[in-house]
Amino acid sequence: MKREDLTEKLLDIKREKGWTWKYIQDEIGGISPILITAACMGQMKLPKAQAKKAAELFGLSQAEERMLNEAPYRGSIPQMPPTDPLIYRFYELVMVYGTTWKELIQEEFGDGIMSAIDFNMTMEREPNNKGDRVKMNLSGKFLPYKYYGNEEGVPEYGFKEG
Amino acid sequence: MKREDLTEKLLDIKREKGWTWKYIQDEIGGISPILITAACMGQMKLPKAQAKKAAELFGLSQAEERMLNEAPYRGSIPQMPPTDPLIYRFYELVMVYGTTWKELIQEEFGDGIMSAIDFNMTMEREPNNKGDRVKMNLSGKFLPYKYYGNEEGVPEYGFKEG
Amino acid sequence: MKREDLTEKLLDIKREKGWTWKYIQDEIGGISPILITAACMGQMKLPKAQAKKAAELFGLSQAEERMLNEAPYRGSIPQMPPTDPLIYRFYELVMVYGTTWKELIQEEFGDGIMSAIDFNMTMEREPNNKGDRVKMNLSGKFLPYKYYGNEEGVPEYGFKEG
Amino acid sequence: MKREDLTEKLLDIKREKGWTWKYIQDEIGGISPILITAACMGQMKLPKAQAKKAAELFGLSQAEERMLNEAPYRGSIPQMPPTDPLIYRFYELVMVYGTTWKELIQEEFGDGIMSAIDFNMTMEREPNNKGDRVKMNLSGKFLPYKYYGNEEGVPEYGFKEG
Amino acid sequence: MKREDLTEKLLDIKREKGWTWKYIQDEIGGISPILITAACMGQMKLPKAQAKKAAELFGLSQAEERMLNEAPYRGSIPQMPPTDPLIYRFYELVMVYGTTWKELIQEEFGDGIMSAIDFNMTMEREPNNKGDRVKMNLSGKFLPYKYYGNEEGVPEYGFKEG
Amino acid sequence: MKREDLTEKLLDIKREKGWTWKYIQDEIGGISPILITAACMGQMKLPKAQAKKAAELFGLSQAEERMLNEAPYRGSIPQMPPTDPLIYRFYELVMVYGTTWKELIQEEFGDGIMSAIDFNMTMEREPNNKGDRVKMNLSGKFLPYKYYGNEEGVPEYGFKEG
Amino acid sequence: MKREDLTEKLLDIKREKGWTWKYIQDEIGGISPILITAACMGQMKLPKAQAKKAAELFGLSQAEERMLNEAPYRGSIPQMPPTDPLIYRFYELVMVYGTTWKELIQEEFGDGIMSAIDFNMTMEREPNNKGDRVKMNLSGKFLPYKYYGNEEGVPEYGFKEG
Amino acid sequence: MKREDLTEKLLDIKREKGWTWKYIQDEIGGISPILITAACMGQMKLPKAQAKKAAELFGLSQAEERMLNEAPYRGSIPQMPPTDPLIYRFYELVMVYGTTWKELIQEEFGDGIMSAIDFNMTMEREPNNKGDRVKMNLSGKFLPYKYYGNEEGVPEYGFKEG
Amino acid sequence: MKREDLTEKLLDIKREKGWTWKYIQDEIGGISPILITAACMGQMKLPKAQAKKAAELFGLSQAEERMLNEAPYRGSIPQMPPTDPLIYRFYELVMVYGTTWKELIQEEFGDGIMSAIDFNMTMEREPNNKGDRVKMNLSGKFLPYKYYGNEEGVPEYGFKEG
Amino acid sequence: MKREDLTEKLLDIKREKGWTWKYIQDEIGGISPILITAACMGQMKLPKAQAKKAAELFGLSQAEERMLNEAPYRGSIPQMPPTDPLIYRFYELVMVYGTTWKELIQEEFGDGIMSAIDFNMTMEREPNNKGDRVKMNLSGKFLPYKYYGNEEGVPEYGFKEG
Repeated sequence: MKREDLTEKLLDIKREKGWTWKYIQDEIGGISPILITAACMGQMKLPKAQAKKAAELFGLSQAEERMLNEAPYRGSIPQMPPTDPLIYRFYELVMVYGTTWKELIQEEFGDGIMSAIDFNMTMEREPNNKGDRVKMNLSGKFLPYKYYGNEEGVPEYGFKEG
Repeated sequence: MKREDLTEKLLDIKREKGWTWKYIQDEIGGISPILITAACMGQMKLPKAQAKKAAELFGLSQAEERMLNEAPYRGSIPQMPPTDPLIYRFYELVMVYGTTWKELIQEEFGDGIMSAIDFNMTMEREPNNKGDRVKMNLSGKFLPYKYYGNEEGVPEYGFKEG
Repeated sequence: MKREDLTEKLLDIKREKGWTWKYIQDEIGGISPILITAACMGQMKLPKAQAKKAAELFGLSQAEERMLNEAPYRGSIPQMPPTDPLIYRFYELVMVYGTTWKELIQEEFGDGIMSAIDFNMTMEREPNNKGDRVKMNLSGKFLPYKYYGNEEGVPEYGFKEG
Repeated sequence: MKREDLTEKLLDIKREKGWTWKYIQDEIGGISPILITAACMGQMKLPKAQAKKAAELFGLSQAEERMLNEAPYRGSIPQMPPTDPLIYRFYELVMVYGTTWKELIQEEFGDGIMSAIDFNMTMEREPNNKGDRVKMNLSGKFLPYKYYGNEEGVPEYGFKEG
Repeated sequence: MKREDLTEKLLDIKREKGWTWKYIQDEIGGISPILITAACMGQMKLPKAQAKKAAELFGLSQAEERMLNEAPYRGSIPQMPPTDPLIYRFYELVMVYGTTWKELIQEEFGDGIMSAIDFNMTMEREPNNKGDRVKMNLSGKFLPYKYYGNEEGVPEYGFKEG
Repeated sequence: MKREDLTEKLLDIKREKGWTWKYIQDEIGGISPILITAACMGQMKLPKAQAKKAAELFGLSQAEERMLNEAPYRGSIPQMPPTDPLIYRFYELVMVYGTTWKELIQEEFGDGIMSAIDFNMTMEREPNNKGDRVKMNLSGKFLPYKYYGNEEGVPEYGFKEG
Repeated sequence: MKREDLTEKLLDIKREKGWTWKYIQDEIGGISPILITAACMGQMKLPKAQAKKAAELFGLSQAEERMLNEAPYRGSIPQMPPTDPLIYRFYELVMVYGTTWKELIQEEFGDGIMSAIDFNMTMEREPNNKGDRVKMNLSGKFLPYKYYGNEEGVPEYGFKEG
Repeated sequence: MKREDLTEKLLDIKREKGWTWKYIQDEIGGISPILITAACMGQMKLPKAQAKKAAELFGLSQAEERMLNEAPYRGSIPQMPPTDPLIYRFYELVMVYGTTWKELIQEEFGDGIMSAIDFNMTMEREPNNKGDRVKMNLSGKFLPYKYYGNEEGVPEYGFKEG
Repeated sequence: MKREDLTEKLLDIKREKGWTWKYIQDEIGGISPILITAACMGQMKLPKAQAKKAAELFGLSQAEERMLNEAPYRGSIPQMPPTDPLIYRFYELVMVYGTTWKELIQEEFGDGIMSAIDFNMTMEREPNNKGDRVKMNLSGKFLPYKYYGNEEGVPEYGFKEG
Repeated sequence: MKREDLTEKLLDIKREKGWTWKYIQDEIGGISPILITAACMGQMKLPKAQAKKAAELFGLSQAEERMLNEAPYRGSIPQMPPTDPLIYRFYELVMVYGTTWKELIQEEFGDGIMSAIDFNMTMEREPNNKGDRVKMNLSGKFLPYKYYGNEEGVPEYGFKEG
């Protein structure tokens, strides 16, 4: 059994039942709704309690329930660059603003990155009389590069004389 | 003269002067600070007034000032996937969450995309006692796919009989 | 069920019945004929009314009808550059004229793009005694890059002091 | 001397003089304005008369004038897929509508292609109260695949017995 | 039903029957033998009369017969560069002689291309006492780039004042 | 000035002086010797104090000293897969053992990653009578995927009703 | 039967039984636990004795047992760069530190490589009050490039006069 | 000195002098005119006598003359697939007809290839009242795969018992 | 039926029977043992007599026997660069020594190549007290580039005056 | 100074002096002639004594002499697959025979690889009345995969309980 087959099965059931993601998120509950959808799409795991609820909702076997609770092999949209226009626009933002983000984050925080692991986000509809907007709030922990060897009591790392 | 040579020159001056982006943004002013940095990085243009101020600040020739006011050939980070870890993490977010974003935005708004053109953003330091976080707020206009031919008075588009 | 399997099924039925696209477009009606074909090819959705008509015409299940009404994962021709000569010629036009289009559109409209979302087109046979021509009329809304922060009352975006 | 260096030189002069493409097109004249810009961008040649006028306008050497009259090695935007958003949108149209174009053109004309060589186009600003539109008219000669051997008097092609 | 499955079926029958291409070409007849093989390989269509004969020869269904009469999605050898040595040698000729062909064809004919659509060819065994040779004769119509706007009565193409 | 030019300059001086990395590491000191070499190779920054010492050692300008203190655009070995055999072997380890590492780390720690940012390492010569061995000790902080929304007091993230 | 199908089968059984890798490693025993997992993942073979134990544990056929004892076609994670974040971090280490490793290993050992064949490793949880760490110890034999022809009694290699 | 710089120099002189390839071929003479152009384009060598004549014609140094007599690193058109339409059409022929050529050549000659090394060609203008045609005659020696071990007196190749 | 399915079938039978390649080579006999294995791996054909023996040995159908006698579409290892370490080492040799081979072969033989078609090889175990070695002897016919037009009686090839 | 610039310089001197590789190999001597050429091509180092002789022969600076003694960043032929026909043929051998080599070497030696590091080779002209042949003898040490944990006294490697 492969995770993508499970994803396809969940989407088939969702279509046949006429469910929305909102409904599925409410039924499973307990964690961020975005994560619930991401797990159904095969990119996140569901914690045990949520996997159980999902199994009840979708009528899954025990093996399928357990698979939903496994950390999947992430990142498998069909190909990069993404061919779908909605997803491509985000890819484009990375190309256009990537170096700017690097400059500004590292000026503010020093050498390091914004974590994509200790990370959460919300999405909202932002009403606007020129046309509503998609508003996304991303929040990732800043992780500084560690310059080991610079502190007291840290073993000096590197090539040591034998 | 190529835009990337101008970018390199601006970064050289910034380094020699010991300026921060904050300082450059304040000196030029008038538009979003992120756009000012993006323009210096060769990914946006500066409006005329800002290009003039940038020219005074950096001591640029008239041709260089005009080039800053041109829409650049965007998107030229050295290669994709980005090899720099800070920028790669955003690329990873697109791979991991891209299909989820598509599902949820299209459930909320219908068939369409979040614009990467009518788009703005802020970045903030979000204090947190487990480690400060980078907070990014993205806001892009939702653009619905137009299903032309569906409305009154719209010429029926398609292959017409000669 | 995957969208490409549905596409294959529709093409099988079209072949077996000996239908033309013209016939299918007329039977489904109500939107641009090009969009009807694009939806059958798995690149657009059909609005609900059209999906219903398509289901009747092709004898589809309810799940298949609903899938036709979903925004598909777009852009999936087998590979890029396209190996088929008819499609490649359009790809070639982008390579040969792309920079020219950029220069001329941005001179006329300023910094921005021609939308591929708020976009429609017609195709016509243009009789010509040296050989008939394919005439395509593309019409896309111009979307200006927004230089936020430049207007009154717009929150100043960028890295803000905490 | 390489064609891209000549392109860079022409753009430098255009910037320094503060010329528009409109002005350059009017000065050189005699052929489609789009072709004049395309030639300056290194993608078309200028016919002799136009190359001479361009040389006078830009103050070029005889060798540069001759180079403008040569068929260039076409198609050299920096990389594909194009990273610039304006050009990418056209690339996206090929991915989304390419198979549809193939279906409809071949239904109308039979097996063959729309020529990208015997091809011309116009661009216009289409005023629209929801936002002006870019209107492009493409016209390419239809070239049918020749099924040789099917006509009288055509030598039968293929592997012949020695 | 996919065209490549039909190709596989035809090759299976050819193998089981022990037929040669020569035999198949003679049975179907009426067009260039090379085109008959190309159509069986899924790269050309067979005209109606030939598709009918092929259906009789191979014992095909009506749907399969119709598929043979459709313009296929061309160009789908497994990958490029071709890994098979026989096909690679042709690819190599393009790499080694491509720029030379461009120089010489354009010196002789002016700016344009040799058509790959209005194109035919023969192959022959050329006896040679140092080892027989494969002789291929390619013949493609020269298609000149049209420099529209240069002739009387042709509408001036380009960006027009609104 | 580009970082790779500075790297080339440092390697030129090292060669001319006949220095070893051991010598350079001892002269600069204060942080892990591996980081010192990595910074000279353009992949890490040197903290201010170390950048100053490096500037004295190599006789650098103030601008070059400052550049050494900047977070570089990382990851730019000439191409991936790496063509150099020594580096390729590490790439091969990722291909051969990557899925195993994923299985075992996630079984031990749960869903998450080993950080490549909060990361340090040593290298040692491991004497062995069948041939000495390279011993590398990698140590990276485990970063768990956060399943936000699962804890008290955390704002529920996801698409919220407007 | 393909090795990846066997891998999928083993993972299915592991999931259904609710086993951990620890349990599987203990049951099979006799070689490094990492190798046991790597073999189940299709990247290593199991020695005969271990393959037999695995067959008993998982209830495999004789052919499957023999396949586990074959040297697999290694290296087949779905694509490179790896899209899964856990595995990508190791790939990133190669990009960031690769040239540094080359410099330091070759300074210490001379021209050569660290073997990825005569190679072993351990992984450990390293308790740390700022968050536990993944500790990996890699140990590979150093293999010096042989400069043949430099020693007594070694045939002089190279192009020899006929 | 690199071969592509020499190519650029020859093209510069050709342009300045206003020479045609026909003229250069006649001046150098003695071998196929196509090879003379190919050598000037950096894809073939010129035999000694021809290199000498070329050196006199173009006014080259002795080193440049010798370089013309060296076997170049072939095949370096800027990128594949070729972006120039004239060259691309040949690439397309390989994609569309490649498998057909394989089938027909191997049916006629057995297992083997058409040599791209023992190869020559002509090009001609083929007058035609529907538009002149480019006619190319390719002639390559057929090279059969050798099934060694099949003949008398041939040492049996393969893995031999030690 | 596809050649790779036949390859998989042969490997399945070999595994089930517990045969070695040595055994299969001896049973089939008559040509180089390496070629026999290569044919089973789907990269060479077996001559008729050998295909017959293989069919008896493996219990194949007539269609399968005929397929073994067909020239396969060669070169289809899963991807290049090869991910398997054993095969990659040969790929690496090409990268490291390729330009050297070119220099030395062309100095010795003149402009041309070593044939990969008229080619044979042996492999031997070379006993060595520091560890046995794999010894491979490659022997390929040198094929000189033909500089046509240089000899008597050879038609002068090139663009001829019409 | 980059290694490829040094390579270009050595080739320039070789050409100007009219030297052969044979001459250079004899002058430098002491190691395999193939390695001497490989080092001049930037793919191997020269041992100290040989670097000194090379410096005298070519008239190099001390820095250049030292660079010749450094382990280069190997493997940098312009691109893979190699476009040059001579080098491509070796690449093709890997594609066609790679899986066969894997099968036969691993049947003879067990799981492991032929080293490309502890590796040497000769090349010879093999006279043959059907055309002389290039004969290459490759000899690489067999390196067995180590199944650690399988022997007495070897620490058990793997994930250990903390």
